[in-house]
Amino acid sequence: MENIHEECGVFGYYSETEKSDIARSVYYGLFALQHRGQEACGIAVNKDRVTSCKKGMGLVGDFFNDKMLEEMPGNIAIGHVRYCDAVNNNIENAQPLFVKYVKGTLAIAHNGNIFNAVALRKELENEGALFHSTGDSEIIAYLIARARLTCPTVEDAVASIIPRLQGSFSLVIMSPSKLIAVRDPFGVRPLCIGRVGNDYVFSSETCGLDTVGAKFERDVLPGEIVTIHHGQLKSNRQYCKKESATCIFEHIYTARPDSVIDGQSVNESRILAGRLLAKQHPVDADIVIGVPDSGLSSAIGYSKESGIPYGTGLIKNRYIGRTFILPSQAQRERSVALKLNALRHSIDGKRVVMVDDSIVRGTTIANIVKMLKNNGAKEVHVRVASPKFLYACYFGTDVPDSKYLACTKYTDEELCRKIDADTLGFLDVESLPDIVPDSTVGFCTGCFTGKYPCPVPKKEDKVTFE
Amino acid sequence: MENIHEECGVFGYYSETEKSDIARSVYYGLFALQHRGQEACGIAVNKDRVTSCKKGMGLVGDFFNDKMLEEMPGNIAIGHVRYCDAVNNNIENAQPLFVKYVKGTLAIAHNGNIFNAVALRKELENEGALFHSTGDSEIIAYLIARARLTCPTVEDAVASIIPRLQGSFSLVIMSPSKLIAVRDPFGVRPLCIGRVGNDYVFSSETCGLDTVGAKFERDVLPGEIVTIHHGQLKSNRQYCKKESATCIFEHIYTARPDSVIDGQSVNESRILAGRLLAKQHPVDADIVIGVPDSGLSSAIGYSKESGIPYGTGLIKNRYIGRTFILPSQAQRERSVALKLNALRHSIDGKRVVMVDDSIVRGTTIANIVKMLKNNGAKEVHVRVASPKFLYACYFGTDVPDSKYLACTKYTDEELCRKIDADTLGFLDVESLPDIVPDSTVGFCTGCFTGKYPCPVPKKEDKVTFE
Amino acid sequence: MENIHEECGVFGYYSETEKSDIARSVYYGLFALQHRGQEACGIAVNKDRVTSCKKGMGLVGDFFNDKMLEEMPGNIAIGHVRYCDAVNNNIENAQPLFVKYVKGTLAIAHNGNIFNAVALRKELENEGALFHSTGDSEIIAYLIARARLTCPTVEDAVASIIPRLQGSFSLVIMSPSKLIAVRDPFGVRPLCIGRVGNDYVFSSETCGLDTVGAKFERDVLPGEIVTIHHGQLKSNRQYCKKESATCIFEHIYTARPDSVIDGQSVNESRILAGRLLAKQHPVDADIVIGVPDSGLSSAIGYSKESGIPYGTGLIKNRYIGRTFILPSQAQRERSVALKLNALRHSIDGKRVVMVDDSIVRGTTIANIVKMLKNNGAKEVHVRVASPKFLYACYFGTDVPDSKYLACTKYTDEELCRKIDADTLGFLDVESLPDIVPDSTVGFCTGCFTGKYPCPVPKKEDKVTFE
Amino acid sequence: MENIHEECGVFGYYSETEKSDIARSVYYGLFALQHRGQEACGIAVNKDRVTSCKKGMGLVGDFFNDKMLEEMPGNIAIGHVRYCDAVNNNIENAQPLFVKYVKGTLAIAHNGNIFNAVALRKELENEGALFHSTGDSEIIAYLIARARLTCPTVEDAVASIIPRLQGSFSLVIMSPSKLIAVRDPFGVRPLCIGRVGNDYVFSSETCGLDTVGAKFERDVLPGEIVTIHHGQLKSNRQYCKKESATCIFEHIYTARPDSVIDGQSVNESRILAGRLLAKQHPVDADIVIGVPDSGLSSAIGYSKESGIPYGTGLIKNRYIGRTFILPSQAQRERSVALKLNALRHSIDGKRVVMVDDSIVRGTTIANIVKMLKNNGAKEVHVRVASPKFLYACYFGTDVPDSKYLACTKYTDEELCRKIDADTLGFLDVESLPDIVPDSTVGFCTGCFTGKYPCPVPKKEDKVTFE
Repeated sequence: MENIHEECGVFGYYSETEKSDIARSVYYGLFALQHRGQEACGIAVNKDRVTSCKKGMGLVGDFFNDKMLEEMPGNIAIGHVRYCDAVNNNIENAQPLFVKYVKGTLAIAHNGNIFNAVALRKELENEGALFHSTGDSEIIAYLIARARLTCPTVEDAVASIIPRLQGSFSLVIMSPSKLIAVRDPFGVRPLCIGRVGNDYVFSSETCGLDTVGAKFERDVLPGEIVTIHHGQLKSNRQYCKKESATCIFEHIYTARPDSVIDGQSVNESRILAGRLLAKQHPVDADIVIGVPDSGLSSAIGYSKESGIPYGTGLIKNRYIGRTFILPSQAQRERSVALKLNALRHSIDGKRVVMVDDSIVRGTTIANIVKMLKNNGAKEVHVRVASPKFLYACYFGTDVPDSKYLACTKYTDEELCRKIDADTLGFLDVESLPDIVPDSTVGFCTGCFTGKYPCPVPKKEDKVTFE
Repeated sequence: MENIHEECGVFGYYSETEKSDIARSVYYGLFALQHRGQEACGIAVNKDRVTSCKKGMGLVGDFFNDKMLEEMPGNIAIGHVRYCDAVNNNIENAQPLFVKYVKGTLAIAHNGNIFNAVALRKELENEGALFHSTGDSEIIAYLIARARLTCPTVEDAVASIIPRLQGSFSLVIMSPSKLIAVRDPFGVRPLCIGRVGNDYVFSSETCGLDTVGAKFERDVLPGEIVTIHHGQLKSNRQYCKKESATCIFEHIYTARPDSVIDGQSVNESRILAGRLLAKQHPVDADIVIGVPDSGLSSAIGYSKESGIPYGTGLIKNRYIGRTFILPSQAQRERSVALKLNALRHSIDGKRVVMVDDSIVRGTTIANIVKMLKNNGAKEVHVRVASPKFLYACYFGTDVPDSKYLACTKYTDEELCRKIDADTLGFLDVESLPDIVPDSTVGFCTGCFTGKYPCPVPKKEDKVTFE
Repeated sequence: MENIHEECGVFGYYSETEKSDIARSVYYGLFALQHRGQEACGIAVNKDRVTSCKKGMGLVGDFFNDKMLEEMPGNIAIGHVRYCDAVNNNIENAQPLFVKYVKGTLAIAHNGNIFNAVALRKELENEGALFHSTGDSEIIAYLIARARLTCPTVEDAVASIIPRLQGSFSLVIMSPSKLIAVRDPFGVRPLCIGRVGNDYVFSSETCGLDTVGAKFERDVLPGEIVTIHHGQLKSNRQYCKKESATCIFEHIYTARPDSVIDGQSVNESRILAGRLLAKQHPVDADIVIGVPDSGLSSAIGYSKESGIPYGTGLIKNRYIGRTFILPSQAQRERSVALKLNALRHSIDGKRVVMVDDSIVRGTTIANIVKMLKNNGAKEVHVRVASPKFLYACYFGTDVPDSKYLACTKYTDEELCRKIDADTLGFLDVESLPDIVPDSTVGFCTGCFTGKYPCPVPKKEDKVTFE
Repeated sequence: MENIHEECGVFGYYSETEKSDIARSVYYGLFALQHRGQEACGIAVNKDRVTSCKKGMGLVGDFFNDKMLEEMPGNIAIGHVRYCDAVNNNIENAQPLFVKYVKGTLAIAHNGNIFNAVALRKELENEGALFHSTGDSEIIAYLIARARLTCPTVEDAVASIIPRLQGSFSLVIMSPSKLIAVRDPFGVRPLCIGRVGNDYVFSSETCGLDTVGAKFERDVLPGEIVTIHHGQLKSNRQYCKKESATCIFEHIYTARPDSVIDGQSVNESRILAGRLLAKQHPVDADIVIGVPDSGLSSAIGYSKESGIPYGTGLIKNRYIGRTFILPSQAQRERSVALKLNALRHSIDGKRVVMVDDSIVRGTTIANIVKMLKNNGAKEVHVRVASPKFLYACYFGTDVPDSKYLACTKYTDEELCRKIDADTLGFLDVESLPDIVPDSTVGFCTGCFTGKYPCPVPKKEDKVTFE
């Protein structure tokens, strides 16, 4: 529910022949991936080896218009939706990154976080490089451009730089005649392949395939480099390892419920989390409600397992957008009320189980509990469909400093009192594997366990993340 | 689900003393009423008998910005969100209507439809009137301005013109020192009163009260004229009749589920409709799903009554907005896929009961059934939580000509085949009263029954509606 | 030079047959009249008795775009550029005024000032009228609409209301099938007729005819009502009086030098004023320069008469626009320098005669004299090509209150010292008739003489001007 | 008169201490330089070694607003106005170029044309460089960044790359703590130094100094590198040669008449050209007129020398802007009439000498001659205040391919007939030095003589100019 952890989304489309509506296909793909980033968006298109790129701030549907898309026919195209923190919220960092280099043009869309970016950038600067942005993509582009001087193909150049990148990266790369998809060896961020007729599609999530009518083919494997050239798919698996470590938070919060990641339905993961919660933290109550939107599936799971009836207790305003005007000081306390409203008739006089996906700072959930009680709830039992958030993420999820995390500041009892809940229960960290039984890959649970799939930067390095 | 029948929303705020954030309060009220109209919006504010008015096309959150609201301090304010058909989609018709007349300024926000508007306009033109818009509000304003020449107060002038208006009207009117709310004698459209401290609030729906922290006081009665002056509420009930006729479609589709209209929770109405549907059209199935957003509550009701488990089968893209770019011809069939996506893991191999709120043209529902089957649904049983839509509405709901209505064109069997459902069931028209058991007022069911609370214009008059 | 006195411009185009580019013709006409008003602009077009109207704030070239003009085909069209003071600077007052009334649509573009507007408005309000703007046009429209109820034609209705209007008015009026031009009985503001093939054109100034390729036909006579209907021109001269009183300030400042008003070339008027100045205020000097743009012609006249060489001493920045950002406090003194720059090489070490069109507040001219001296001018002799500005204008020129007028505050000697000029000379008020020898009409010289062609409102009425 | 040859303008401001209005000062400087480029503009500011940069399409006054300037306090700032041809008319090429490199940030504003840019870019790409724009500045930035790896200071790095650049360049460069101005060894483009108190200002022309209240100090010498650091000016003259070659077309057309370049007043150059024209091409006539704006000074010169009276014969519409809507096909012939109008009263029945600055394609001048004759001119004698345009420019003036040049296509007699002039005379190419007698530098007259100060690219290289 709390809007603090978000991601980026990438999308790519390859057709052997020129399509007048290729940019529109990418537009629809980005539309489906919009939940992964709302700050900036962009599309780059190749037509006869000439590339054009349009990017801007805001939602895909707000920035692009019909005329812009019509001006971008072509046979290869990539797109990006971007989440960014306040500091880097500028157009220079919008993607795709689009540059000219020795072999023509190169466009890159990136989802992830390179945590040795500072060192790489310094190294490049020491060789005379200029940077226009503060983003990882430009570093990746430089590495590719330099590698390309000695590598016979662009996909070889891409492959040769993988060992240099520490962190997470799902990349879609467009050269004058090729479309390349790369997933880091841990496979931290999702990336999948679809087909529409003879065309190839890459998308961060399967929901992006559905909007362009593409059939899901398979996921890009952790560590795989997939190249589409002359209509043929070529796979380089030299970096595919035994152990992968996909971000489990994609299932808990980030991804759309209708997506399937590495074989595991996101909606099923959430229902399972709800079922497990019901087993681990049962309670006698009259109704189970979810906090929209990401808590709803887990609430259904809790209801199914516990037998307590499921109902709608909170309504979300569908028109809350980016440009929302904040309340004046006098109106501040009503802040949550603008996004959510309680359904008095559902909860009045009832003992309510309220399921949310996660607790970060804890302020929003406190306001919701208060709202429920103001609307007559006799008891409010908060159930959180994920373990306690205790550690930083180094792979791209924007988690606040641990000193702001509710679960590091308070014991369960303190937090329960703080948010004025009657009881409070988190998903047991041990049961995390049980919410993703169908997954073909392993998981990173670093933010809950502090155990990461590889060495991560020490705290003092963190400020330099860009 | 089909976006064809919508309404307007009105909001008013009265404070004895000037408030710097009064426009912001109206802004939040309109935000909560945004579902009633997305084409245009506006706010008018009184400060020391000087009125300013800002209105524009689009969503409240897109048109207004912080600076605009800050420039509008005052002690009385009204606002409007507008739905409009393609023909009248222009800024001249945006509301509040704001005019200067013999007693200063007058601002009017109107929800409803005056069906003798053409005759009234002709009469006024024959006396030399000029019109700037094609809307009903300007006619109402003229009638008030003329009546005011002989009536001692503006509220008397308002009262004196009620008999001249045929049709539906929930009005919020602002004179230099008064805030007036009017609901037509049938009470077709909702309108309620709330309080924040000593301030008075009028809102089309109770959800508008919640966002400004107002406590629900009571509904404006059908036929009642409520005037706030010098901080006091005065009620004129001379037009309150025994029989009222509130629009039952407000419960089925228009209103927000967290609103309560004349004592009846909208969400409860929908759950009851779902329960009744389950009784009237039972079926053997594995899962009950709702078409988001307005079919969800009825789906829960169907599930509760039938015992068939409730689940999430369709996901709605939350970023679909007004400026959505239509697919190219080649992409046309994917049109529904951009708004909705099926959850294969929920429905694959299952017999699905799919509940929607209503069927108008029937095209959307056909696409959804197809999407469910493409995602593995073994059977799809469509259940519609309202009776068959058969007649025109003369009170403001924008229903297409009956020749486009699915239920007038096809028998149930034909329609069922047309949309490729396995079975199809509508709510029995006789049971409509059973979905609103708590309501303190009567209902208009004209669009389902052809029986209207008063004589309505003959067909040939209809073209002149503006 | 001082940007304080400006006007409005009106334009009309009549073609027997529909033209796809009629709005574009009006656009070009307004472009030529842009100097008469830069705050707002608008165009209304009739096509098959259906009228559309687009208006907005800003310059014609900024507001209108190609698409807007293409959407406005038709056979009759009118346009307006508007000057407005800070108070009435809003879109509601932009023109053409476009209303619907008993006989269809009516569009009005007005240049002038009705000084009994307050009384007329009160009278109309007392009969139930609503007003959307604070402008004179809406009053005129109401009077026409009411008169039309009893008059057989719209031109008769227009004629019947002329006696009710006190003040100045050059009107272009479009009914569903007619184009009407009206000039008040004094003919205060200019208005002329041109022809392109069989089409008729009305324009505030002849320069508007030139840009649409129209041949000047004749001026609308003071008091004349000209109606174009079915391609025929009809003239009503019932209000044409012996004595007319065109504003002489049009020749001195307002009109474009390439315009000819009532037979008199504006450029010639200015050259003559310069020649007279040279006779009345001779001086021994090395160079005559003009303050761009309106002082240049008079400077040439002064040079011709005196024999002192003409030169360029000041350059005006051609990019100064409406959105100009004001200097910070520390930069304030450079304000004039942003618009004008001195040509040191022309004036260094020289005795300079500097000719400007008029002096209002006197602040700008003081800055210019200072600039000339800073650039080496040994002496600066200021010559003003108009008499001393001493009285208010009631006919539409926006003159500041007399307490701000330099010439009412100071004697000539004081003012000369104040602006640091070596000598200062104004055009002799007696010689005003000599600058317009070719004019076929009489003149109003009220702002210089206090003698107006008719009784004017007393001072206390002035605040109500709108 | 013909708008085809234009330039860029650069501006820099250095203050020892932070100034809240430094960006505003640059804004005013750019305002004065706006005639050198209207397609794009930008400002970059240093504050405590942190640089921000804002740039956009359009005029300085349209793009920047108060808020943007207020957000850019600092102690060093540079700005740029950009002319660009249709092909490179995009935001990526707007300047200042702003990049991050090994020593922090670097901002560059460039006026000129590097004609070995293609080779340099290829060389850099072959070493792994990425390019975001197609402009010369990015190449220069790369060269500096690489040189900086081995040079002790940024000004040394700048100095070291001068030999690598062929062509013209007036540069203003901002490092985290220094402001550097560079003029190429030929001094093709102007660049001067001014002072306000202890602050230093660099500007393409002296008119830019005047608007910020700066006193002209001296020109940057051809080949000089001027560095301001810790409030001190340091000059490196290692590249200053004996022979310089400033563009003479700056005097004829590009520069503002109130500017002084290398000791020569631009206005005086034009007056002298007019005087020489009168000697070289005398004619018996009644009036001398100039084509506004750049022909006016030469017309005055012609009048002075010939004794034929000077007058105003053409009025330029001051509101013609970038967004001007083109006439429809039927209106095409009136295209010139929208920008210029003839003063019939000045020319009717007269023998007219019409002076323009140059003839490029010859189409505009033909239309003007026609306009004069249509307005009664008995004879039109065209006098051009520059020699015949016969050759390409390789130093940044955008001259069309020679096959479009009127003077390469036609003999004088043919051209005279073509434009329907009675006589036609060009300034004698031999007398070019006589129009710039005060200049301290030499001149490039390549476009008139084909003799360039250095070897220029062969024709086939030309297409690659960017």
